Formats: sequence, structure tokens, C-alpha cells
Amino acid sequence: MPIPTPASQRRLPWLALATLLVLIGTSTRVEADVDPLASWNEGPAKRTIVEFVKATTTQGSPDFVPPAQRIATFDQDGTLWVEHPMYSQVMYCLDRVPAVVRAKPELANVEPFKTVLSGDREAIAKLPKEDLIQILAATLTGMSVDEFGAEARKWLDTAKDPRWKRPYPELTYLPMQEVLEYLRQNGYQTYIVTGGGQDFVRVYSEKSYGIPPEQVVGTAGGTKYGYDANGVPFLTKEPKLLLNDNDAGKPEGIHLMIGRRPIAAFGNSTGDQQMLEYTKASAGRRLAMLVLHDDAKREYAYGPAQGLPPTHVGALTQALYDQAAKQGWVVISMKDDWKRIFAFDEE
Amino acid sequence: MPIPTPASQRRLPWLALATLLVLIGTSTRVEADVDPLASWNEGPAKRTIVEFVKATTTQGSPDFVPPAQRIATFDQDGTLWVEHPMYSQVMYCLDRVPAVVRAKPELANVEPFKTVLSGDREAIAKLPKEDLIQILAATLTGMSVDEFGAEARKWLDTAKDPRWKRPYPELTYLPMQEVLEYLRQNGYQTYIVTGGGQDFVRVYSEKSYGIPPEQVVGTAGGTKYGYDANGVPFLTKEPKLLLNDNDAGKPEGIHLMIGRRPIAAFGNSTGDQQMLEYTKASAGRRLAMLVLHDDAKREYAYGPAQGLPPTHVGALTQALYDQAAKQGWVVISMKDDWKRIFAFDEE
Repeated sequence: MPIPTPASQRRLPWLALATLLVLIGTSTRVEADVDPLASWNEGPAKRTIVEFVKATTTQGSPDFVPPAQRIATFDQDGTLWVEHPMYSQVMYCLDRVPAVVRAKPELANVEPFKTVLSGDREAIAKLPKEDLIQILAATLTGMSVDEFGAEARKWLDTAKDPRWKRPYPELTYLPMQEVLEYLRQNGYQTYIVTGGGQDFVRVYSEKSYGIPPEQVVGTAGGTKYGYDANGVPFLTKEPKLLLNDNDAGKPEGIHLMIGRRPIAAFGNSTGDQQMLEYTKASAGRRLAMLVLHDDAKREYAYGPAQGLPPTHVGALTQALYDQAAKQGWVVISMKDDWKRIFAFDEE
Repeated sequence: MPIPTPASQRRLPWLALATLLVLIGTSTRVEADVDPLASWNEGPAKRTIVEFVKATTTQGSPDFVPPAQRIATFDQDGTLWVEHPMYSQVMYCLDRVPAVVRAKPELANVEPFKTVLSGDREAIAKLPKEDLIQILAATLTGMSVDEFGAEARKWLDTAKDPRWKRPYPELTYLPMQEVLEYLRQNGYQTYIVTGGGQDFVRVYSEKSYGIPPEQVVGTAGGTKYGYDANGVPFLTKEPKLLLNDNDAGKPEGIHLMIGRRPIAAFGNSTGDQQMLEYTKASAGRRLAMLVLHDDAKREYAYGPAQGLPPTHVGALTQALYDQAAKQGWVVISMKDDWKRIFAFDEE
């Protein structure tokens, strides 16, 4: 039995609770007024998201999903932020080449480093995939994980996208930020599942998307544990691929890193096909969505789904577009479905 | 300005709040009375845990750690549950051998399957490591991840430890369960970082420890994405090692799967050395603890730290014991520090 509280202690809580009541009354009304997807135009894409969230989170709904199983996965490049004309991480690696050559001057006259140092954008854009992999290995491995994090952070704070003249982390899509937040408000865990480097994306995921490092799954290399001259342990990034988090690597990476199948997944290219299939294949109400880049004016238009040539970055092919229609994935048109694209766009 | 609430709607909340007040008053008193580490005897180990949690979670403390960085990692076998005389997962694999041989009868006369089928415990215990690995590969891979989960769940519900005659998931240490809960109550994320199979531990981690699958890091094999005859995608467990989550593999696995360095770590054997070093090596107040199995009566006593022979399971060596003293890791004596060992022990 609870010990009776003295009257003098009882008064204050009543006052506090009266205040609380006013606040509850206010906040309920505020919530009802605010549209969590304010940057979305009304239409099938927005409606699909809202109905999915209501169906899976309303107690008693036949599609109700317990909070622990509310896992939503998001591709990053082209789904959460700009990927055109080149992935930001590739820009980072190219920008790091001079420092790598300063440390190893013998590379200055060796390809592909020579071409990158020349600054000839056209020649750089034409480098074959093998050369690109060589540049990635040289610029992303061989240092400690702490050194890598510090370098990447510095670049992300200063480097600017050539079109918008803004740091890359500002080029996230406002409507997708709203989806992330809306899902989290409804008890979902939001994961990034990216073909990009896991260590790279983890540097800014918390600040850019509110997603902590442990909820970023990406292409990952091995590390090696060792000790410095003072016996202090540290991890070195090794040029050894553990997980290629593209295509079939996405569901495989989800199993490895999360261990549960998502019930909602968002992508924009052929690299996301298997993640979306895998998400839709389990029993129950599931959500699969594809972002279509069809807004040449406000962002970019690319990919065979619109009769445009494929780019070196992933794109929405006609086959994927057809699969979406067949399997009930919903295509998001940037042009039609998004009222604003970036937070810095005028309202 | 908030719209005034009609009087009829205002009455109910006041009643609810009056009830709430009584509940708040009650629960505050209950909390103050309850010792979160009730199964621990007073002593340096208990004191170290409580002081660490207070120092890292009290606003304004010089050792305060923001919630997002409160990561605690726990070895499983011998740290959270019984590992002697054989890891539960090895018991699972041995128990699975008859089913494997039923599917492939030609294995019946091939070693090491022949020995396992003989039921000769002494001979089985003497099988060399290579044979054990062959048994693990045959019993843990080659099926879909869903089939594996269903089989493991069935075994965990029915198989019993030969000494206590109870299902293995009941053989968790109550004092460590209290530490897990106490840390979580104080904003910590609690991870299992085990040399055991990640997929295996994830089957029962939520039910046994309140730890969801995505917070289990373990020895992990690859999976392969494919489609069944109806075109439905599924993942097959492959006999391909991605992460050997022992020794240096523990900090490497932590980097891969969590991406942050823990600030508290618990282990019991040489396999945990690097995880504890890595945890202690970063700046700030850090906690590293080792469970010493010195209670032959209530559990087991083994390992060179007590002048006993090493076992085939990981053990606390003299070198690790010395390192603990030198680097400020705290050794937990099961005999002296734990009032009760299992939840089923009498109070």
C-alpha cells in the first residue's frame, strides 16, 4: 500500500498537472493541423504512404505490425539525396587523390591517378570501372577508421556541389526527410541500405537524416585490429570487400546487419530491385516505392524509364518500371508528387 | 490560440490525471526502494557498475556521455549464460546431425558424422577442431534462413541442459540480466557481441535478454539471394565465413555492425581481450569487466586464472587476469559477487 503523501507535497503536482492539461489540449490540436508530408502534393504516392502507416500502426487493424517489426529501409543515392551527375562519395575520392599522391609521389605519373590529377573532367568521367575501383581503394583504405572519419567530415563540411553551390549534405530531398520522420513518429526504425560506403555514410547520417551510424548498412570493407607504438589499439581500413551492398547484396546485407526483413523499402534504381522484392515477398501489408527522376528543371531527368539514356549512376530501367506495375510497387514522380525538392527551395 | 475545450470534455481528463497522480506517487516510491542489482552482493564489482552508470548518465558530471554514445557490449557464452561443459550451439549442431544424415545417408559411415551418431560422449568431446567445423558447416548452412530459424527455435524450446534439466535459455545469469536492464533503464543500448553464430543467437536474444536481433553481433556466414519455383525470393545460408567474431574479430565486428566504439564491455575469456582493450582505449570514463567462473558448487570453476586446467571453451587465463589488473578492468567473482546465479535459484 502506498504511504500517504503529505499535503504540502501534494499541492505542487496538481499545479503541474493543470499546466500539463493545457499543454495536452494544445498539442493535440497542433498535431491535427500539421501535415507530416507537407512537401508532397496530394496524389497516389502520398496517399499510399499515409494509408500504409495507418494500416500498420493502428491497434486492431488487420494489417497491424508490432513496433519491433516496423523496419523501413531506404536506398540513399538518388532516393534520399542527389546522385547525378556523380555520386558524392566518388567526388570525395577524386578530391582525395592529390593527398594520396603527396604521400606516394610515384603515383603522379601512373594511371588512373595521372588523369585525375589533370583535372580534365571529360577524361575523368570516362575512366573505366576498374580504374575507379583502384581510386576508391587508394583513397578509402590504408588509414585508421578515426583518420578516415576526420577526413570525410572535413570534406563534407567544405566541398560543394557544382550546380547548387552547397555542401552535399544539404542536397537531401525534403519530401523523403518527411517520410523518414513520419515513419519514426509512428514507431518505425529507419535504416539506410546503400551501395555507398558504410563508413562514409555513417559520418553524416545522424546529422543529415537523424539516422544513427548503427542503422546504416552499406558497402563495407574489412578492418584490421592492431596497436600503435604506445600499445594503443586501433582499426585500419583494409582493401578487402566484405559486403557489396548493391542488387542481391542489399537483402543479404539486411540479413547480416539487421536480421529482420523490412516491411517498407524505398529505392530508385536497378540496384534496389532485390531489396524491394524481398520486402514485398513476406506475408502481410508491405510497401515498396521507387523514386523516378523526371524533373529536369528542379533536379534531373534520367534513365530508360523515360526514354532517356542510362547514366553511369543507377537508373530506373523500363524492366524495373514494368516490375513495379506488376508487383504493386508505387512510383514516386519527383515532378508531380513533390511540391518542394530541397529544404532550401522557396515554398 | 487554442480553441476552448467544452466543459463536458474537460471533466474526464481531470479524473484521469488524479489517477495518474496517485500512480506517479506510488511508482516514485517503488523505484527508490528497489535495488536494480538485487542479485549482487555489496562489493567492488557492484559498486563499480553503479558508480560508472551514475558518472556517465548524470547531467553535469565530468564523465557525462550523451545517450546516443551509450553503447555497452556483452560477450554471451560464459558472460551472460552457461558455456560449460560445451557451448549450447555446439549441442544444437550435434543434435542436428541425425537429420543431416537422414537427408544424406551416405554420411552415416563418414567421419566425423559416424562418431557423432555413435553417441559416445567421450569420443565426441575429443573430436578435433577441424571435425567440429565440418559439423557446424553441415548443420548450420545449406538451408534458407527461415528454415534455420524455425529449426533452432524448436530445439531451444525443447532441448535441456543435462545438469539442470532445463531449456538452455533458462541458464542465463540473473545478475547479468539485471546489469542489462539497469543499463537500458539509463539510456544505454545493450549489444551482444558473441563468438557464437549470429543467426543462432538472434533466434532467442529478444526473449532471453530483451535484446532485439539487430543488436546481436556474432560470427556470421554469407547468405545467397535466390528464387523458389514460384519466383518467391529467399536467402540461403552459405558455408562462407564473413566475420569470425572472436579475439580481434570482436572490435572489427563492432565497427562493421555498430560503427561506434562501446564505452562499456563485459567478457569472460581470452576471446574478449581485444573488445575490452578497444573499449578502454578511448578517452573518457570507460568500463571493462570479466566474469570469473570460480563457483564449482552453484555453476562451474574452470580456467588457468584459478590454477585449473584450460577447457575447450574460452577461459580466463593468468595473462588476461594480469592484464585486467594492469588496465583497470574489474573481475566479477561468481562466488563472491553474485547472491543468486539463476532466476530459478531460491532467494
